[in-house]
Amino acid sequence: MKIGIDALAFDVAKLHLPIANLAQKRIIDPEKLEKGLGLLKMTFPDVHQDAVVFAANALTGLVENHAIDLRNTDRIYVGTESGIDNSKPIASFVSALMEQKFGEDLLRQCDVVDFTFACIGGVDALQNCLDFIRLHPEKQAIVIATDIAKYDLGSGGEYTQGAGAIAMLVKANPRIIAFDSVWATDTKGLFDFFKPYRNLSKTEITGKDQNPEWHGQLEQHIEIHKDQPVFDGQYSNQCYMDRTRGAYFGFKKQMDVDGPLYDSWENIIMHLPYSFQGRRMLSEIFVLDSDGKTDASDLKAVAKSEGYQSFVSKKLVPAEKASSLVGNLYTGSIFMALLSTLAVHLEKNTKIEGTTFGFLAYGSGSKSKVFQGEIQPRWKQSLQSVKLFETLAGSHEMDFETYESLHRKERTQSVRTPKHEWMIERIETEIPTLIGARYYKWID
Amino acid sequence: MKIGIDALAFDVAKLHLPIANLAQKRIIDPEKLEKGLGLLKMTFPDVHQDAVVFAANALTGLVENHAIDLRNTDRIYVGTESGIDNSKPIASFVSALMEQKFGEDLLRQCDVVDFTFACIGGVDALQNCLDFIRLHPEKQAIVIATDIAKYDLGSGGEYTQGAGAIAMLVKANPRIIAFDSVWATDTKGLFDFFKPYRNLSKTEITGKDQNPEWHGQLEQHIEIHKDQPVFDGQYSNQCYMDRTRGAYFGFKKQMDVDGPLYDSWENIIMHLPYSFQGRRMLSEIFVLDSDGKTDASDLKAVAKSEGYQSFVSKKLVPAEKASSLVGNLYTGSIFMALLSTLAVHLEKNTKIEGTTFGFLAYGSGSKSKVFQGEIQPRWKQSLQSVKLFETLAGSHEMDFETYESLHRKERTQSVRTPKHEWMIERIETEIPTLIGARYYKWID
Repeated sequence: MKIGIDALAFDVAKLHLPIANLAQKRIIDPEKLEKGLGLLKMTFPDVHQDAVVFAANALTGLVENHAIDLRNTDRIYVGTESGIDNSKPIASFVSALMEQKFGEDLLRQCDVVDFTFACIGGVDALQNCLDFIRLHPEKQAIVIATDIAKYDLGSGGEYTQGAGAIAMLVKANPRIIAFDSVWATDTKGLFDFFKPYRNLSKTEITGKDQNPEWHGQLEQHIEIHKDQPVFDGQYSNQCYMDRTRGAYFGFKKQMDVDGPLYDSWENIIMHLPYSFQGRRMLSEIFVLDSDGKTDASDLKAVAKSEGYQSFVSKKLVPAEKASSLVGNLYTGSIFMALLSTLAVHLEKNTKIEGTTFGFLAYGSGSKSKVFQGEIQPRWKQSLQSVKLFETLAGSHEMDFETYESLHRKERTQSVRTPKHEWMIERIETEIPTLIGARYYKWID
Repeated sequence: MKIGIDALAFDVAKLHLPIANLAQKRIIDPEKLEKGLGLLKMTFPDVHQDAVVFAANALTGLVENHAIDLRNTDRIYVGTESGIDNSKPIASFVSALMEQKFGEDLLRQCDVVDFTFACIGGVDALQNCLDFIRLHPEKQAIVIATDIAKYDLGSGGEYTQGAGAIAMLVKANPRIIAFDSVWATDTKGLFDFFKPYRNLSKTEITGKDQNPEWHGQLEQHIEIHKDQPVFDGQYSNQCYMDRTRGAYFGFKKQMDVDGPLYDSWENIIMHLPYSFQGRRMLSEIFVLDSDGKTDASDLKAVAKSEGYQSFVSKKLVPAEKASSLVGNLYTGSIFMALLSTLAVHLEKNTKIEGTTFGFLAYGSGSKSKVFQGEIQPRWKQSLQSVKLFETLAGSHEMDFETYESLHRKERTQSVRTPKHEWMIERIETEIPTLIGARYYKWID
């Protein structure tokens, strides 16, 4: 039985800053970012957007474009590292918004939950939903990956920022892609990128040794939540490579493949923290998995070789296109890479049905999963409504001052007027039993 | 094929405050808490403990008591609402600690991730691992539920506090309990209990309208993380009842049972935010599901009836015993209820093999799941090493001042010297790329 993704929909922040503008302000050579890392635009959330909004927009698009009956949806599983609550999952907010828009109690029997493991939580959610459908082929599940990749102003991650969500319908006999049941995993608990609370003592805040109440906080230590991660970019690249290598060769061994595994893959779909991450790190695996070559010592020469360049342009470039225009979507990045690849093939009218796509997923902390899927005969039919590049072309360019004011949370009014989308209506500040409750509304 | 829990291990905070002492300080009638809610002791974490420590202790116990080969463990799935990082899951910390103690790279191929949905995330993790084993019966998975239930001083939740974790080995042909594949879910996105960030503007902090940098924070709004939830106890009870009723009758319908469903259950295992939560709320279902009685209008009379009292003492009391001594464990509470029930039967030498236990799980926000399992012939053999009540009897009583100083995070030294357990060794404060990284060590 074939199990996989039947339909996809997405939403990204509709505001962007051209990378060249950021480069100029940060005194970085724009070529380094554009030609070196493949970055063109950086999307950033507006005042009325959070990770719930992106998830709800993507799911609303999925439901509307594919006339999904939510009553028959057994799961909404969310992967995210941009949770807004330590207890209530984004999936729970999203299910409430779907009922708000499409009808009360439609999702009463739907199982909803969030998965957390940095950028790989969406893939974890997908894998569990594939298992679920394998056991219950008459059911359908929805997987959403939603995130906001925000980095400190002036930091080495700033130019990789992005925000958005992908929603996917997982079914038996899917129209787009059916996944093989073999998956390989490589895990190692490390600190390459993480989002700890920032501890601040009251002595630091007040300059006093006592522990007076401070804005309702009775603890001597205050824990501050930041959207921005603590990370070491170079080390995280190394962890990405180590985990991916482990999972790749683990997968190859399980599949008992002769010759380079990647030769059997029409396209390679990877987590792309920046657009060219894949091509910059895959040269090692390219060499290690080639016939007769096991010396990965001169990777720079390999990277420039004709063989590798042809490998990149055939297998990786289609996935890079959207990433260049959107930035990092964390959990959504690998699914945006899939969508980008499919949209490129749709534009070119390539015949890809029957071909196999290889997936290399990564989450900092750290874990990689490698798996593969076969493109199904009806993929084009399902993709028609997505309009990926048309939508991205309509993104609203903002100036640098607007970007910084959004980053610093200094604005109270949205930059762009919401239209046909969800928005944060308000966050409760008065009623003690509802402090922090977020309410959303749909704008027609 | 039978799939379920083969072995269980637990860890709870080894410090407690007698509820009578808290009642006295808060000017509450101790009878109300002890006889009314079934609360006797409230466990609370020591300085060296967090949700990672409890999870790692429970898993270390599981590995040691059952000689588990971690190399053959395919999953460590964690349910928690006490995450210490918005990106890096507790499962990733725990896998690193297991390799630290039992050997490097033992878990390199193990899939680890956290599930978030208030108190039901552990059940969600379990359900997904059961599906996984059903598809791969030669593999084994570990599920951990770990949490710290902390409430504001003087609040209505204070006397329900507790802290600890349960670790479970999930396998085919399990020794303890095999679960039926039918599960019922009832969901509704609500704000009965949640853990939002507390928003604080710099204007409130500094009294100025500008947005100066403040302790490294550039945003105009600071988000403070608190372990304590925002909640409405009475409303949350109502949500608990509404969701449970929905899932219970959904399960009954799916199973096509004649007569009261609970009649087929030897024991009922529930999420117990306080020990007597089950007996206080089940009277409605008891009446609704009885033959010929659908009038739930006089629940007080039902609760006092002989029939209901006998139902409580037979089906619910064994689960309440540990809860009275431990407090709320959030995700771990329902599994502690299972462990308590099994430990009571072990003490009494009851013959329960072949009987069915019914499970009523709840997570605020809100979701209930109802499912059932059959006790297996070798349950006693697996339970021998647990020593639940012996361990709880060895808990260290603290005085009220110690409790308050721990709650306010004013202590730097542990109250109790760690022994044969994990402890937080240090939290990085200097190296910019590692700020907030938590390091742990095992104390022999």
